[in-house]
Amino acid sequence: MTRFKLTIEYDGTNYVGWQKQLNGLSIQECLENALSTLFQILTQATASGRTDSGVHAKGQVVHFNAETSMPAEKIPYALNTLLPTDISALSCEIADDSFNARFGAKRKTYCYKLYCSSHRHPTLERDHAHIVQQLNIEKMRQAALLIVGEHDFKCFEASGSVVKETVRTIFSLDIVENSASCKNAISIEDTQKEESKDILNNSIFFENTQEIEITVCGNGFLYNMVRIIAGTLVYVGLGKIEVNEISKLIESRDRTHAGKTLPPNGLCLMSVEYKK
Amino acid sequence: MTRFKLTIEYDGTNYVGWQKQLNGLSIQECLENALSTLFQILTQATASGRTDSGVHAKGQVVHFNAETSMPAEKIPYALNTLLPTDISALSCEIADDSFNARFGAKRKTYCYKLYCSSHRHPTLERDHAHIVQQLNIEKMRQAALLIVGEHDFKCFEASGSVVKETVRTIFSLDIVENSASCKNAISIEDTQKEESKDILNNSIFFENTQEIEITVCGNGFLYNMVRIIAGTLVYVGLGKIEVNEISKLIESRDRTHAGKTLPPNGLCLMSVEYKK
Repeated sequence: MTRFKLTIEYDGTNYVGWQKQLNGLSIQECLENALSTLFQILTQATASGRTDSGVHAKGQVVHFNAETSMPAEKIPYALNTLLPTDISALSCEIADDSFNARFGAKRKTYCYKLYCSSHRHPTLERDHAHIVQQLNIEKMRQAALLIVGEHDFKCFEASGSVVKETVRTIFSLDIVENSASCKNAISIEDTQKEESKDILNNSIFFENTQEIEITVCGNGFLYNMVRIIAGTLVYVGLGKIEVNEISKLIESRDRTHAGKTLPPNGLCLMSVEYKK
Repeated sequence: MTRFKLTIEYDGTNYVGWQKQLNGLSIQECLENALSTLFQILTQATASGRTDSGVHAKGQVVHFNAETSMPAEKIPYALNTLLPTDISALSCEIADDSFNARFGAKRKTYCYKLYCSSHRHPTLERDHAHIVQQLNIEKMRQAALLIVGEHDFKCFEASGSVVKETVRTIFSLDIVENSASCKNAISIEDTQKEESKDILNNSIFFENTQEIEITVCGNGFLYNMVRIIAGTLVYVGLGKIEVNEISKLIESRDRTHAGKTLPPNGLCLMSVEYKK
């Protein structure tokens, strides 16, 4: 038996999440079905961690065992003929027998995307949360700096979780505005200056739409932690929580002092890192 | 009766396109149904132009007439309670009686998005074309410069079209690589340099994924013109068409010399501009 490390991407919209469940189709079930068909024997897959229903992944890492003569780099091509179109194998390599996608994970990077607009934007709905009010990004960045570091993050853990150790390290927490957008298009530099005096650019209506990406890298995350951090930063951006309250909030270890848990569709697991 | 100018956004995935058709649901039918319900009288809507099945819009402009005491800026809120979630009204204003969304349009801006990767990427599939090979962006940019300007663009018109006048002006044609991406996340600046020596960043697998946005602004477009220009630029990026063949290609007025028509899902109408 050989142990393989597989990286997959998925659009989580139509799934109950990574983990197999009785109440609906999971990413794990689809992947294990594809692996079992490919290797003609029941094959189990272990991911770096569960993702919730509706959460996406661009770099989820999985391990499995198989006895096969197929070169590792060919496995994604074979799997992708068997997987639904909203799940895709991106790369595969042979790993040490001791490689464990879950327990070996040293760092994970998540991205939470949201947009602020009076009206919903259908082209963003699939992978962004929608906030109706505008946000103060500078305040959110100041608050983010206070979250970076090693802390007891109990305040950012979903209530009811049974994890005992709640100390985690956040290596970075970056907030980028309006980067993920074709919107530059509508402030396009004009090649015919004279003519343009008389042209009304209807883009003025969209200048009030903020698109924001919150990217967080840490050595591990408590249940719902990224969605609660994103919700807390939104509260800071709205003025509902002040920047200078963040450190006290963390010290309080009290979930009720933090912001709301934002919806799953804005969240994407970007990458998982392991020891060389 | 008052004439209104309305800007709408839609995800075109589930529609037969803008225009009403017998064979399926159109954006126009949904919008006219919502307008007719709102104003309690059959109301017609005219767009700046048709978009094909599967094509998206972030800034489609529409005009309609209505007799209403509702302030124009409130109309989007009312419409959005009546529209399906993949169509949204973004803004509305009173226009001159002579305002015509179709015949008054002076410029349109489209964005065509694509990604290059050996494997499909489910999080991009909805609004990107998928190209398996890598593209030479520099060559594509050189070719784009030769397309900008006033030309007879017959070579970029879908065959069978009955339009007589095929001269159009392209004001700008910009190609941006990897801007619309959370991928910066995976080259994140490390806050703990010592520890990071031993960490394998699995992002190396994704460095071969190019995300490309082709943004084109012109005074009008022939049928399928943007998708054929994008397909021609892809051929240049692949080396199937040389940069120095572009001007000859345009002069030839021969559709068969240009690249393939790329699929509709990569295309988005970004904005439409009118005389002040």
